[in-house]
Amino acid sequence: MSHGRDEIGQRSETVRRANLGAIVRELYARGPLSRSELVRRTGLTRSAIRVLTGQLAAAGLVTEGQAPPLGSPGRPSHLVRLVPGGAVVLALEIAVDSSAAAVVGLDGDVEGWVRRERTVSDDPAERAAGLAALAARALGDRSMDEVVGIAVAVPGVVRRRDGLVSMAPNLGWRDVPFGEMTARALGATVPVAVANEADLAVLAELHRGAARGEADVVLVSGAIGVGGGLVAGGRPLLGAAGYGGELGHMPVRPSGSSCRCGSIGCWETEVGLEAILARGGREPGGGLVALDGMLRDAAAGAPAALAALDETGAWLGIGLAGLVNLLNPRLVVLGGVFETIFPLVAERIDAELDRRVLPAPRALVRVVPAKLGADAPLRGAAELAFEPLLEDPARWFARDRVAPERRSA
Amino acid sequence: MSHGRDEIGQRSETVRRANLGAIVRELYARGPLSRSELVRRTGLTRSAIRVLTGQLAAAGLVTEGQAPPLGSPGRPSHLVRLVPGGAVVLALEIAVDSSAAAVVGLDGDVEGWVRRERTVSDDPAERAAGLAALAARALGDRSMDEVVGIAVAVPGVVRRRDGLVSMAPNLGWRDVPFGEMTARALGATVPVAVANEADLAVLAELHRGAARGEADVVLVSGAIGVGGGLVAGGRPLLGAAGYGGELGHMPVRPSGSSCRCGSIGCWETEVGLEAILARGGREPGGGLVALDGMLRDAAAGAPAALAALDETGAWLGIGLAGLVNLLNPRLVVLGGVFETIFPLVAERIDAELDRRVLPAPRALVRVVPAKLGADAPLRGAAELAFEPLLEDPARWFARDRVAPERRSA
Repeated sequence: MSHGRDEIGQRSETVRRANLGAIVRELYARGPLSRSELVRRTGLTRSAIRVLTGQLAAAGLVTEGQAPPLGSPGRPSHLVRLVPGGAVVLALEIAVDSSAAAVVGLDGDVEGWVRRERTVSDDPAERAAGLAALAARALGDRSMDEVVGIAVAVPGVVRRRDGLVSMAPNLGWRDVPFGEMTARALGATVPVAVANEADLAVLAELHRGAARGEADVVLVSGAIGVGGGLVAGGRPLLGAAGYGGELGHMPVRPSGSSCRCGSIGCWETEVGLEAILARGGREPGGGLVALDGMLRDAAAGAPAALAALDETGAWLGIGLAGLVNLLNPRLVVLGGVFETIFPLVAERIDAELDRRVLPAPRALVRVVPAKLGADAPLRGAAELAFEPLLEDPARWFARDRVAPERRSA
Repeated sequence: MSHGRDEIGQRSETVRRANLGAIVRELYARGPLSRSELVRRTGLTRSAIRVLTGQLAAAGLVTEGQAPPLGSPGRPSHLVRLVPGGAVVLALEIAVDSSAAAVVGLDGDVEGWVRRERTVSDDPAERAAGLAALAARALGDRSMDEVVGIAVAVPGVVRRRDGLVSMAPNLGWRDVPFGEMTARALGATVPVAVANEADLAVLAELHRGAARGEADVVLVSGAIGVGGGLVAGGRPLLGAAGYGGELGHMPVRPSGSSCRCGSIGCWETEVGLEAILARGGREPGGGLVALDGMLRDAAAGAPAALAALDETGAWLGIGLAGLVNLLNPRLVVLGGVFETIFPLVAERIDAELDRRVLPAPRALVRVVPAKLGADAPLRGAAELAFEPLLEDPARWFARDRVAPERRSA
């Protein structure tokens, strides 16, 4: 009966699992909901909600209780909420100068969070081993078997399907199977997803930050490299093999400067951190410290610093104009370095958009700073790591049974 | 019982209608299929396929017959096929210098096709009336009540939701509710969808042309303006309000020429027809005739014409490089004027992509010419017009009953 099919040909078990997923996703995205709200949001019947939340409660993923009386008439509805520690994921991050690990619960709260300056070489195996050590500390008393998902943020171009880092210039990596390496170092019982740090920052800003609830978003994240991510119709725009979103490498000035990627005049050559510093007369390689100095000068009214930021705003606006004409987003979120300089460039960005974007898409779009700051990639890794659970929670009910088989895979 | 819900809370009627849609969409996309193939492709049971195709046959949308013997053992499977005239749509097109109408059947074949040079002014009401006259001729003996969908291609920026043409510079239109106007002129009993001609050319190339079967596609269509369309994960990328895909207005040379849109250095100013003609020393406004002259010169080896085309290829490659880095498509389809000049620019485009696209997305993408030529927008309008039927075929079963109500809406 568990794989029975009804008269119209739908597989009941498939439907049941999909409906369990729909309930968990609603609770994950919106927080606690009454049964009535679940009925309304999922389109399921009241009795189906009762049965299915019962199954989720038995699996330890949700709890149910009376809703607090609100002075409204009628029977109080049961309030369904996720159990924060009912499932946890391991979120990992390889940054250029540090590594980080966090254990994150179903409510998005962080149980354990460890970041460490990079002390080993950039050799992939050593960095994977470093992550494993951090993960052990972040897990504390929990065992790896309790972890329902694992994801790593890396500063590179990643093939999502198998976690191959095809290129990470700042680490000197090329075609590194970092998902597999990390899984081995961790002794993981679930696959390790790998994704670009900026893509994950998008995911975090989308689910937990500035773009929460928005379906059409362009997120641009600035550092030495310029990355970002695109969301269209509520779904991340990853392209045919997950390489999409390389918006730092749109040509905006084909007679301009050489880019690290081998091309000329990529957007990154005009709005990346090095270009901002050069424009402000700072030493290359000065990083965020040099940028802070520039921002202090600008705050004090220094004309050179103000002019450098204004020109940066113009180039930000030029690239964004192309993206807005192309993608008609409702929201542009600027993160990383662009979040830092936002107050000083916002006006010039708007002016360029006024001039360069077609009236209809211009009228619809707002440009805002990101919210999660430097934590965004790690928060995004947690979101990615929860995806398999949200897709099919029932798969985890019988976990003890399937774990050995998956381990041997 | 028709809205009964089963024990796991799925609404049976909703599921039945969704499954009918899945069957019709498979047949529409792939042509005749055996019941076994339908079972495999839809995930429905054999008995469900039998019941549901029976309902579709009763509604006149499909026929069933024995598959021709193939010399293979086993019982022959019933072959299910759409009835070509079982449902027809009206595809309409407003071009700058002509209007067109076609009646298209479920197999994509055209029953009636009429194109006429523009003889009236560009006043929207007059153009709508002109379309209605062409539609009457294309319909022949059929009545408007038999038409299950209507769509119009227009050379402008369109809000899909309600068919408002927010801007069509070549027609001098601004905020024209052309969907409503056309529905009124036609005395239509179904809503009239309106969409940008280049977006529809994409749809046509996607379903019936160069991109058939591809899920991640960038289609660029060149004329005086440069438009196009994006497909990601099998779905058109339209943006928050359907204004997406304006790839002619990506800035690629911010210190370049003024664009019709008010910006400077849009891609269109480097690869639009006027730019190509100017580069080849032709008079502005010479149109396709002047381009033909240039191509003849190039074929004869004239250095000026060859150099002009080579430079055009470089600028095509520059813009495409940004799109490929951004969207990681598997296929780039070049239509309109770019289809015409394709053999003379292909090599230079590839060279620019080699230089400007990151290695991983570069390795995945092919650049090909479009297939449907000037018919693409009208063919795309037919595809768009069929969408409501493909989404929910059951809605059309009781059409005679609901038509008067919809007429009064």
